[in-house]
Amino acid sequence: MKPVRVGLLGLGTVGGGVVNVLSRNAKEIARRAGREIEVIHAAARRLDAPRICDTTGIRLTTDPLEVVNNPDVDVVVELIGGVQPALSLVARALELGKPVVTANKALIAKEGAEIFRLAHARGVQVAFEAAVAGGIPIIKAIREGLAGNRIEWLAGIINGTGNFILTEMRDKGRDFADVLAEAQRLGYAEADPTFDVEGVDAAHKLTILAAIAFGMPLRFDAVGMEGISRITREDVAYAEELGYRIKHLGIARRRENGVELRVHPTLIPERRLIANVDGVKNAVLVMGDAVGPTLYYGAGAGAEPTASAVVADLVDVVRTLTADPDHRVPHLAFQPDQLDDLPVLPMGEVETAYYLRLAAADQPGVLADVTRILADAGISIEAIIQKEAAEDVAVVPVIILTHRVREADMMSAIARIEALPAIEGEVTRIRMEALS
Amino acid sequence: MKPVRVGLLGLGTVGGGVVNVLSRNAKEIARRAGREIEVIHAAARRLDAPRICDTTGIRLTTDPLEVVNNPDVDVVVELIGGVQPALSLVARALELGKPVVTANKALIAKEGAEIFRLAHARGVQVAFEAAVAGGIPIIKAIREGLAGNRIEWLAGIINGTGNFILTEMRDKGRDFADVLAEAQRLGYAEADPTFDVEGVDAAHKLTILAAIAFGMPLRFDAVGMEGISRITREDVAYAEELGYRIKHLGIARRRENGVELRVHPTLIPERRLIANVDGVKNAVLVMGDAVGPTLYYGAGAGAEPTASAVVADLVDVVRTLTADPDHRVPHLAFQPDQLDDLPVLPMGEVETAYYLRLAAADQPGVLADVTRILADAGISIEAIIQKEAAEDVAVVPVIILTHRVREADMMSAIARIEALPAIEGEVTRIRMEALS
Repeated sequence: MKPVRVGLLGLGTVGGGVVNVLSRNAKEIARRAGREIEVIHAAARRLDAPRICDTTGIRLTTDPLEVVNNPDVDVVVELIGGVQPALSLVARALELGKPVVTANKALIAKEGAEIFRLAHARGVQVAFEAAVAGGIPIIKAIREGLAGNRIEWLAGIINGTGNFILTEMRDKGRDFADVLAEAQRLGYAEADPTFDVEGVDAAHKLTILAAIAFGMPLRFDAVGMEGISRITREDVAYAEELGYRIKHLGIARRRENGVELRVHPTLIPERRLIANVDGVKNAVLVMGDAVGPTLYYGAGAGAEPTASAVVADLVDVVRTLTADPDHRVPHLAFQPDQLDDLPVLPMGEVETAYYLRLAAADQPGVLADVTRILADAGISIEAIIQKEAAEDVAVVPVIILTHRVREADMMSAIARIEALPAIEGEVTRIRMEALS
Repeated sequence: MKPVRVGLLGLGTVGGGVVNVLSRNAKEIARRAGREIEVIHAAARRLDAPRICDTTGIRLTTDPLEVVNNPDVDVVVELIGGVQPALSLVARALELGKPVVTANKALIAKEGAEIFRLAHARGVQVAFEAAVAGGIPIIKAIREGLAGNRIEWLAGIINGTGNFILTEMRDKGRDFADVLAEAQRLGYAEADPTFDVEGVDAAHKLTILAAIAFGMPLRFDAVGMEGISRITREDVAYAEELGYRIKHLGIARRRENGVELRVHPTLIPERRLIANVDGVKNAVLVMGDAVGPTLYYGAGAGAEPTASAVVADLVDVVRTLTADPDHRVPHLAFQPDQLDDLPVLPMGEVETAYYLRLAAADQPGVLADVTRILADAGISIEAIIQKEAAEDVAVVPVIILTHRVREADMMSAIARIEALPAIEGEVTRIRMEALS
């Protein structure tokens, strides 16, 4: 059979990885797919840039539209990132009836509905395994491997940069800013780290995971988002002392009256497998009603791990090129007419346990006042620890772990605690999940 | 569209789980699959046995062939276990052009070649996700999710009973026989525990994993097999002291001149995620050349976890019922004419590091003799520890960790060590893997 001819939009880290993997494993891949897969045309920002791959035999251009429109290109791989011009290029490919493979999480999270509508209208596939958790086949696992389950919740370490920073803070007792600067030097973090450290990137990925887990529309707009930039090394150390690790998690949870969608730093018990996922690795824990908890772990970024997911998608697309569209795996796991527009609960309605850290004047009665405020708000305390005061300061740190509570109730209790004269500054609050 | 009608062979734990999951999640499953899936006919050993599921609306029989032959049955689910009569029933279903879903690891490991030949000849699918690691979608992950990779090796905790026993031995300092008896009381271990504790069950699963990872035939006959029955609590404790855990692993590794296929107790560094997979849980660590290490964790057995995999297979089968057979995922990951008959290396050619425990007379020169024998065999020592002798005995335990060595070289060095007059009894040897 004729090889499948791929057009590549973007020839940077991931694009170079795709070219390398397709060429190095050409035989292995053809043995699986039943056809050869070759890149014949690629668009790059600059033609004279240094490359990690050999482009011999690949026609190069700076115009991605030329690649999309090339009648010899059977499948388009979009690795440009960002919403535009990626959206127009993908839309054009679909209009031409060409399947698209993309690693673009922002594009799918924000414009997925429009893209899948177009794809469905033309009976063409869009594959996006590489958009979430790099090389881990998590889309396939949830969408197909757990198809018999009602998914109750999922929680993922889905931003490698953030996890690298938190791991370094814990292992070496270093400050956030210090580790961030190193991550930027190592190339793990962008010059503008906002997307990674403020949770935007994780929110894009969580949006996609929630859609395929619950059969709901892509609701990036509704994700409650909090980053790791305000986590201090003291909190990391206190958490450790109490038997917890702080991880930046994306969490989607089914509730009776809707779903919770949120990304934020989270204390989790250190005995959980996911608490031991360190450095730039990713992992997603999924709770299905039949299977129970399952976990998927691996590299969440990088040239070849991401290329691994792109090539797996290419093999899937090749296998089903001639299959009846009605018999393919639906893009968002559930049939397009079967999406359920579940309400996303506002963050005030979210329920979690809490880690609180307060600076209290070293005087009698403070703890009594604080615990009274919590009790009045119906918040149960799991543990309370008063640390030794440093020699030269008049305040002592107090750490409180609570049981589960509505976020709005916790926020108003915190406001009352902060108003106590014996409490200095703001109360630090980090959410806590048992993940069991 | 008309519902897909399932015939069930076996209505025990897993069969009951399948009925329960299909009925409880009927809506969710139909939203994914695009069609309803219902069990219409089931064969059980006894019609009056107590059941974990409601069989209302299901025609029951004691004759599985009646279910297979029922013209109203579209898909056959085989949950009888063992090679016969399962093989004849599956063969008959395929002859009738009916797709088969099975959880039967022994059947696939031993008779898979014949089954897939029949299936291929008739253009019918056989799905077997539930045969390995219960509810973890590991077949799908390797066969499809990692399709871009050359798989270098994989290592799995793929027998829950064995892992439960080793976990209890470590956590509570208990003896093997003692924990086995408890596992039997709890129903985790069969009355005849041979399949679990001697590694046969793990070898069945490893056979399947190796075939789909490497694109090689099913070679159950060639798996090197060693169980956990000779692991003592002393070894578990010494391993712990040295920073290792003992896990029963199935390992498949590509070597230049063939592949290693082996199941045996293995020391692994405690920092590895897979070293922290405890109790009856399963996990498989897969090393792909592009993606690096990925790990898949979850319940490896039980009614509903196994049912989760069976139902996922049913959804896959339903989606591709009308698809051109040439465009489906090949049964063993690689196209049937593309299997590569890789030689399986004899155990003597396998290379691992070793943990050795010897009982040495408490006298000068013993260590010198032992280390001389190892040095002469070209075996490097990573660590050597002489433990305190108990008050009333004249021998002391000596623990040696070695670097990687050919198994045949290690075995002959051990024979020479055992021949030393100052060494009492047999040398305990447990293989050790860095898994990195």
